[in-house]
Amino acid sequence: MQGAVLYGPRDVRVEERPAPKIIEPTDAVIKMSATCVCGSDLWPYRGINPTTEPTSMGHEYCGIVEEVGHAVRSIKPGQFVIGSFFASDNTCPHCHAGYQTSCQHKEFVGGAQAPVLRVPLADGTLVATPSVPSNDLIPSLLALSDVMGTGWFAADAANVKAGATVAVVGDGAVGLLGVLSAKQMGAERIIAMSRHASRQRLAREFGATDIVTERGDEGVERIKALTRGVGADAVLECVGTPESMMQAIHSTRPGGSVGYVGVPHGVELDGEQLFYAHVRLHGGPAPVRRFLPKLIDLVLNGTINPGKVFDLTLPLEQVAEGYRAMDERRAIKTLLRP
Amino acid sequence: MQGAVLYGPRDVRVEERPAPKIIEPTDAVIKMSATCVCGSDLWPYRGINPTTEPTSMGHEYCGIVEEVGHAVRSIKPGQFVIGSFFASDNTCPHCHAGYQTSCQHKEFVGGAQAPVLRVPLADGTLVATPSVPSNDLIPSLLALSDVMGTGWFAADAANVKAGATVAVVGDGAVGLLGVLSAKQMGAERIIAMSRHASRQRLAREFGATDIVTERGDEGVERIKALTRGVGADAVLECVGTPESMMQAIHSTRPGGSVGYVGVPHGVELDGEQLFYAHVRLHGGPAPVRRFLPKLIDLVLNGTINPGKVFDLTLPLEQVAEGYRAMDERRAIKTLLRP
Repeated sequence: MQGAVLYGPRDVRVEERPAPKIIEPTDAVIKMSATCVCGSDLWPYRGINPTTEPTSMGHEYCGIVEEVGHAVRSIKPGQFVIGSFFASDNTCPHCHAGYQTSCQHKEFVGGAQAPVLRVPLADGTLVATPSVPSNDLIPSLLALSDVMGTGWFAADAANVKAGATVAVVGDGAVGLLGVLSAKQMGAERIIAMSRHASRQRLAREFGATDIVTERGDEGVERIKALTRGVGADAVLECVGTPESMMQAIHSTRPGGSVGYVGVPHGVELDGEQLFYAHVRLHGGPAPVRRFLPKLIDLVLNGTINPGKVFDLTLPLEQVAEGYRAMDERRAIKTLLRP
Repeated sequence: MQGAVLYGPRDVRVEERPAPKIIEPTDAVIKMSATCVCGSDLWPYRGINPTTEPTSMGHEYCGIVEEVGHAVRSIKPGQFVIGSFFASDNTCPHCHAGYQTSCQHKEFVGGAQAPVLRVPLADGTLVATPSVPSNDLIPSLLALSDVMGTGWFAADAANVKAGATVAVVGDGAVGLLGVLSAKQMGAERIIAMSRHASRQRLAREFGATDIVTERGDEGVERIKALTRGVGADAVLECVGTPESMMQAIHSTRPGGSVGYVGVPHGVELDGEQLFYAHVRLHGGPAPVRRFLPKLIDLVLNGTINPGKVFDLTLPLEQVAEGYRAMDERRAIKTLLRP
């Protein structure tokens, strides 16, 4: 089997790897319909997270079940399934509370940039669609595996309510789908912070009412000016740097909420600043599994089309160009056809 | 007029000060029925916050209105009133959202350890009782001015719900009243973290079901052991040190909430740790004004008796002993009779 492997900064290759098979009785093996490159894959690709050994890449997936272990009850061969980047049993107390990415038995699902994938804890992790979907729906269903669920969690964690004023920090695929999520949750005003024409366009299409191009303190001042000095009710932090986190916190009104889903890199929060900001803070790895049934419905009934974030589609063997295009911000997000 | 003035570490004196009078047309001047020493007064008393010039102390108060400015509408001379340590207009967007301690016109109310006090923005800040209360109710009504409202905000910020498992970090007066607040909000299990027999006793009286004497990582392990490895639904952080904050965060289950009201001293939060902890964080200076009407009702109808935290009552001239007793943890909280 040919799969993507990262060797070091900007060195991602497609090479022969052993084909995954059932190891645990709770596993499933799926044949990938599509996979993609995540914004978080760029951290090791750029060398910000070091790569100590060749690493199989990819954690977003959907496809047809080929085989299941003998303990798998609800998932069956032939079904079209979507799962999260963390496998979860969906029965432990953390899963019951809706935090499957903190499952007591969670396991990272890696190596998805490949034609075949082993998914642990199949019954708890995978959600099957009622029937095998048509090809045109694949990009939007694939997006649910991470990027759409993560944008949704950012909005959920930020307590977006009907009528709310929302700001979104970050115009990557997660930020853009955060805009879409806030719109679905009934936000009245959605301020997207973006400097890129193509991303601004998609943000508007997803529901953004205002675009702010300023960043840092100037960005905060713009948000304040747009909200009569009050700040936004809810701010979605979709980057993960110290600057973006502080921009999010300072753009929020007292009593408002920051939902943060950008994996933090070098973020340190000053307790006293946070105390006097009076904001609510919630985030972490998005419990995508919680949202999958609802989001699958919204895609299948045509309400949302999150697959629009894929503005580049490549065959798997061109994965290196897929990473490069995202790294250079020529593409928002790359879909890979195995 | 005689009032308390802090000169430097462990040097608090009662000395002659000019009697407060109406300055702004929105002011009230009140004759104090009682005042007290706050846990936060101990930060400058201990020299942790430096005292650069002699400072009038005290920010907790209740008493009879003597005089009001000509723009004051709802507050009248002769009324018994309680207010917060921050004066607020109670009309700006932040006040309307229930965050009066972030009022756009907020003003700190200092110098309350005295027989007479000027309170700015009287209409927005003060809440009058239906009639002048009997003397035995004064300690509990005084407690509403800060310590009880702060404990209540900790529980509110931690989303305490009926049936919840709650842990309280800190056995000062705020922590103890956090226990009382959690009980009022219907918590089923309340774990108080305390090593002091007299405080443990009061915690139990206020509704604690379990006492944990361990601190730091050991304290976290005890909370986990008491909750079958899950963690508490809600944790009230009522201290403000790096250790207490991390103890609170790590004692909380994924998706659970930390309500923090201890004024942070040296607290730095690591973004990545916070991200993977998956907790909700909310806190800051308690918007006591939001809770005053409800808490006054609960005191007047005998449901709560937060004045029990005052285990030492002294005449104002013995303020130095009042601070010393709290500093040495001989007293939980000192009430001062002007």
